[in-house]
Amino acid sequence: MTNNIVVTNIQRADAATIDGLREAGVATAHEAAGRTGLVGIAVQARQSGLTIAGSAVTVSSHPGDNLMIHTAVEQCRPGDILVVTTTSSSVHGMFGDLLATSLMARGVRGLVIDAGVRDIATLRAMGFPVWSRAVHAQGTVKATPGSVNIPVVCDGQLISPGDVVVADDDGVVCIPREQAQRVHQASVERVALESAKRELLASGTLGLDLYNLRPLLESLGVTYIDDPVTNKTQ
Amino acid sequence: MTNNIVVTNIQRADAATIDGLREAGVATAHEAAGRTGLVGIAVQARQSGLTIAGSAVTVSSHPGDNLMIHTAVEQCRPGDILVVTTTSSSVHGMFGDLLATSLMARGVRGLVIDAGVRDIATLRAMGFPVWSRAVHAQGTVKATPGSVNIPVVCDGQLISPGDVVVADDDGVVCIPREQAQRVHQASVERVALESAKRELLASGTLGLDLYNLRPLLESLGVTYIDDPVTNKTQ
Amino acid sequence: MTNNIVVTNIQRADAATIDGLREAGVATAHEAAGRTGLVGIAVQARQSGLTIAGSAVTVSSHPGDNLMIHTAVEQCRPGDILVVTTTSSSVHGMFGDLLATSLMARGVRGLVIDAGVRDIATLRAMGFPVWSRAVHAQGTVKATPGSVNIPVVCDGQLISPGDVVVADDDGVVCIPREQAQRVHQASVERVALESAKRELLASGTLGLDLYNLRPLLESLGVTYIDDPVTNKTQ
Amino acid sequence: MTNNIVVTNIQRADAATIDGLREAGVATAHEAAGRTGLVGIAVQARQSGLTIAGSAVTVSSHPGDNLMIHTAVEQCRPGDILVVTTTSSSVHGMFGDLLATSLMARGVRGLVIDAGVRDIATLRAMGFPVWSRAVHAQGTVKATPGSVNIPVVCDGQLISPGDVVVADDDGVVCIPREQAQRVHQASVERVALESAKRELLASGTLGLDLYNLRPLLESLGVTYIDDPVTNKTQ
Amino acid sequence: MTNNIVVTNIQRADAATIDGLREAGVATAHEAAGRTGLVGIAVQARQSGLTIAGSAVTVSSHPGDNLMIHTAVEQCRPGDILVVTTTSSSVHGMFGDLLATSLMARGVRGLVIDAGVRDIATLRAMGFPVWSRAVHAQGTVKATPGSVNIPVVCDGQLISPGDVVVADDDGVVCIPREQAQRVHQASVERVALESAKRELLASGTLGLDLYNLRPLLESLGVTYIDDPVTNKTQ
Amino acid sequence: MTNNIVVTNIQRADAATIDGLREAGVATAHEAAGRTGLVGIAVQARQSGLTIAGSAVTVSSHPGDNLMIHTAVEQCRPGDILVVTTTSSSVHGMFGDLLATSLMARGVRGLVIDAGVRDIATLRAMGFPVWSRAVHAQGTVKATPGSVNIPVVCDGQLISPGDVVVADDDGVVCIPREQAQRVHQASVERVALESAKRELLASGTLGLDLYNLRPLLESLGVTYIDDPVTNKTQ
Repeated sequence: MTNNIVVTNIQRADAATIDGLREAGVATAHEAAGRTGLVGIAVQARQSGLTIAGSAVTVSSHPGDNLMIHTAVEQCRPGDILVVTTTSSSVHGMFGDLLATSLMARGVRGLVIDAGVRDIATLRAMGFPVWSRAVHAQGTVKATPGSVNIPVVCDGQLISPGDVVVADDDGVVCIPREQAQRVHQASVERVALESAKRELLASGTLGLDLYNLRPLLESLGVTYIDDPVTNKTQ
Repeated sequence: MTNNIVVTNIQRADAATIDGLREAGVATAHEAAGRTGLVGIAVQARQSGLTIAGSAVTVSSHPGDNLMIHTAVEQCRPGDILVVTTTSSSVHGMFGDLLATSLMARGVRGLVIDAGVRDIATLRAMGFPVWSRAVHAQGTVKATPGSVNIPVVCDGQLISPGDVVVADDDGVVCIPREQAQRVHQASVERVALESAKRELLASGTLGLDLYNLRPLLESLGVTYIDDPVTNKTQ
Repeated sequence: MTNNIVVTNIQRADAATIDGLREAGVATAHEAAGRTGLVGIAVQARQSGLTIAGSAVTVSSHPGDNLMIHTAVEQCRPGDILVVTTTSSSVHGMFGDLLATSLMARGVRGLVIDAGVRDIATLRAMGFPVWSRAVHAQGTVKATPGSVNIPVVCDGQLISPGDVVVADDDGVVCIPREQAQRVHQASVERVALESAKRELLASGTLGLDLYNLRPLLESLGVTYIDDPVTNKTQ
Repeated sequence: MTNNIVVTNIQRADAATIDGLREAGVATAHEAAGRTGLVGIAVQARQSGLTIAGSAVTVSSHPGDNLMIHTAVEQCRPGDILVVTTTSSSVHGMFGDLLATSLMARGVRGLVIDAGVRDIATLRAMGFPVWSRAVHAQGTVKATPGSVNIPVVCDGQLISPGDVVVADDDGVVCIPREQAQRVHQASVERVALESAKRELLASGTLGLDLYNLRPLLESLGVTYIDDPVTNKTQ
Repeated sequence: MTNNIVVTNIQRADAATIDGLREAGVATAHEAAGRTGLVGIAVQARQSGLTIAGSAVTVSSHPGDNLMIHTAVEQCRPGDILVVTTTSSSVHGMFGDLLATSLMARGVRGLVIDAGVRDIATLRAMGFPVWSRAVHAQGTVKATPGSVNIPVVCDGQLISPGDVVVADDDGVVCIPREQAQRVHQASVERVALESAKRELLASGTLGLDLYNLRPLLESLGVTYIDDPVTNKTQ
Repeated sequence: MTNNIVVTNIQRADAATIDGLREAGVATAHEAAGRTGLVGIAVQARQSGLTIAGSAVTVSSHPGDNLMIHTAVEQCRPGDILVVTTTSSSVHGMFGDLLATSLMARGVRGLVIDAGVRDIATLRAMGFPVWSRAVHAQGTVKATPGSVNIPVVCDGQLISPGDVVVADDDGVVCIPREQAQRVHQASVERVALESAKRELLASGTLGLDLYNLRPLLESLGVTYIDDPVTNKTQ
């Protein structure tokens, strides 16, 4: 089994691709990835207006135990994002301002955690961005083994070490490392396309016409009615 | 059945009534309506400090499919609020900045959706107010029929097309169109009354006295005790 | 039984202890109390960046009925925090700007309620801090008896009248009155200790070394691996 | 407003239609109604293997207060189903074996309640079927007004007095009274159709062929692949 | 602080009182206790038709760690009920058939746990009754300290060691030890009263008359209407 | 991207290993797998007392659309278990008795679905075992593409096609195909060990002694106290 291991040597995507995916943002990167990769909605931004992208360093912890988070810090490099999961559902405040201080000292860009964080006011003041399942002051122990840099499932989404994680106010998306360049390219094209659409829609063109949806509505049997009361008595 | 129809001709309340209900706000309008009309707490404001009121244009969609939202845009007029529901529970991000661009071009005042939205940072920057069950980037298809401007249930609350919807940081309330004038009038009276009460309470008058609750407490058998330990041993 | 009573004479902790615990904040006070005392995560701050501490005046209400909140106002003194629970789960908006006006007139520092509040925009504008399970405009009646200043359970946490309640963006913690001085002292020591740790971590010292965790990892059988693929085929 | 009223004279569907819909069961009646009418999944069968159908007598109660249930009993006739909702979410045990005794004495067929019930073991022993949001012993008061036989929303579904309610292990569906005959007829046809399909499927015919789905899959771009690894490297 | 202690000498209620409360069942004991004492609805019976009553031996555990359950076994005597809580929310399967074997060997009557259990089919076959928050196979460690026989909060309800716990299909109620005799006496009276009411209701007497509710309805302004449509246009 | 594909040729574990894991059951297989592999608790057994094991045929569907389930039927062989997930959270009744008829005709052993099923009474009568997130009659469309036999995440657990799925009243566990033999062997050893322990525990030996936990309790600072009141005043 791959239990209780720390993988020290993981591959990461190139910096230009990661930066490009950050510019795309979560919704666009997710669409460019064929509508895949989203972490569930339980993991929410704990600040407003920040977007980050980086390489995932992953942690699988026992609930209520942050021993493996401390272990993972050493594996982080500038540009990484720490991704923490627990072996069963937990809202313990496993991460606070001291761990954030450590991560910022190593150039880590943020935290995605399927559990709780605490010291949230300090984290915001420090400018350390966090996406978490909960804010909860409940303290943790350092007693139980776990793993660093193994594939983990974060609120329903598989994340492997070295995958590109993008996070903003819309949530968190994971782009597998080997697909990152391709998804980046697709997201650039998508942004251009959306820009053109936005202008048309702002000028009053309807999506019904822009996307040619009227024939589809007709084929699906959608009927236009002036007066529902009359229809009811037909 | 009234499935898969688009009703093109709905009645709306008059503008002065709608504006008056906006000034009252959700809590007061709800009280003025006899404590009825509230959408459930799952549908939450996605910005802070904004109040809107308008006429409901309603959508019943398949989950994860925004075809009928595009269809509904054409039915919207200045002053409307788009109200979107799905045929079963869904948190898909069915609405984003492109649809908001379209709605703003038509003078729509905001969105109430019992599902997810995305591009939330852009929506806030655009000043387009949203009340939703979730923020989620998950993309949608355009494949399944539904209806526009039929009565819908939005997180437990029946909303008919043309009803007056008021939304603020307290949530969303629906005032049936035919009751809107009467509720508006009642809310004006209520605001005046509350203003007088607020002054009394600020000066130290107790609610117990203001509402004459002491006799009620006595009739209900509520007892004042100095020392609970003594009471326990009685 | 201790039903339907109002206890008028409760003991409170001294002001210096209460102020000291406010400076410590929720996470530190909780740790200083031996990782005890936290109210659950359903009761959340409804504003950002505020910390309060005070003596608990407790309410046990029927759901959807705020008669006993009005009754409790009279029992509040400057420096108190009102703690409201219901006899079964409820999200009614049992508290709004009029009750807040009353409490501010008596010098109450804030509200912790395991139910809903309304008029939230006004409460924020008034500067009256609230921690609640929900924001919901749903109105209440004044019809059913309950108790004031009996021990209550607030989202999983026992709170007795006169206990010290501390609340900030991390949540709410309750320190039993008779332990307050001791916990305050422990929190002062803890703050000093954390300050030293923060400097070391900021300079790049790892938690693994600061807390001497490497021997523990080894004793737990955590293994460092360079290449997981090779490991998989072992 | 239609608050605090008891409507004594409601129309009901004919007995043959109601019995026919009971034979169809919830899933079939829901399909025959154009995939409409389902109460949400929070309201669950509290026994196994029972199907009922009857005319809705509706109740809108204050949470934790069963005064209006007692009021509704008098409005029930043989063949009715009592449908109870609360003005905000509640899990109080508003209904127990005494109320069931009363309803059975009047020939009522069962209870659908968007709240809690208690004495569940006795209810099962009495053979009185219940669909509820919760089983909870929490007692109620009799203090607050409400309404009987007004349209209510039961876990997301609008139910009007006199509508036909069908409930089985799959949940609860509401068929509007004026559509009941038509839906009954459609359900009879559907049952016949499904019976034929079942035989074909049991003999090994695939749904892909029975519903002619292969062209659809192709038009949607679904691709058959023998070996996904090879595909990945394409 | 009272952390990490095992209290070996607790007081229990007398056997006759405990047996009497078992006969009353949860709903009646809760009413006899003045509508207090209920554990929340998240803790559910994991079998059907069993009622137990006994003296609480309480456990406060770290989530995902059953060390303190093993510690508590030694403190159990015949007639006890083990009550397990965790310091933060957890659904780990902290208890299975081996621990049940141990408890049955000591004459323990059942388990109430605000967390998960596993081996549920075996537990049912053994006839060991369980009320739990979840059924989950997730294994636990034995690594973290906790306490036995301190007051705990179990899904919102304070339970002290030696309190009488009654559990059946309606849930779990806790009767404080010092009130047990009085509550038992009240429940006997209540059962007699309900028996008389049941006969009256079965014979067709309405609760409206039995409880004399008609004057209350009138005083609350509840109005009887024959035809709601006419009323609407009044 | 691996979107919208059907993989026709997957590898499966050998029948003896699968049967052996079925005998072990979910809790034991999970422990033998190093406490990994559990599907979350939202996916629950919809019958009582059945254990199945088989090879996973996986489906990734659009919510509310069962086109890909029909597509997957053709890929199933005797001894398989169908595992269905949706691209975002859904409780639609995507599976009923007709699909079960099809699967039984192909020798499929059961269904694990992170969504809803319907016709549950018929499914039980047919003896077709189901683990699902919900029972809900809500009907589905056949309109949107998806994939068959790609890796999916089922309530938090990664499941790849051909993995061994074991399901019983405790839930669902996934054993990766390439680890199945090793886990089977470990589970056989574990069963033997537990059998010996069970005898000792039944005869009154405490887990504290059997697992030698007393030194651990001491090292963790757990203290035995006769009388908590005295301790409190120390």
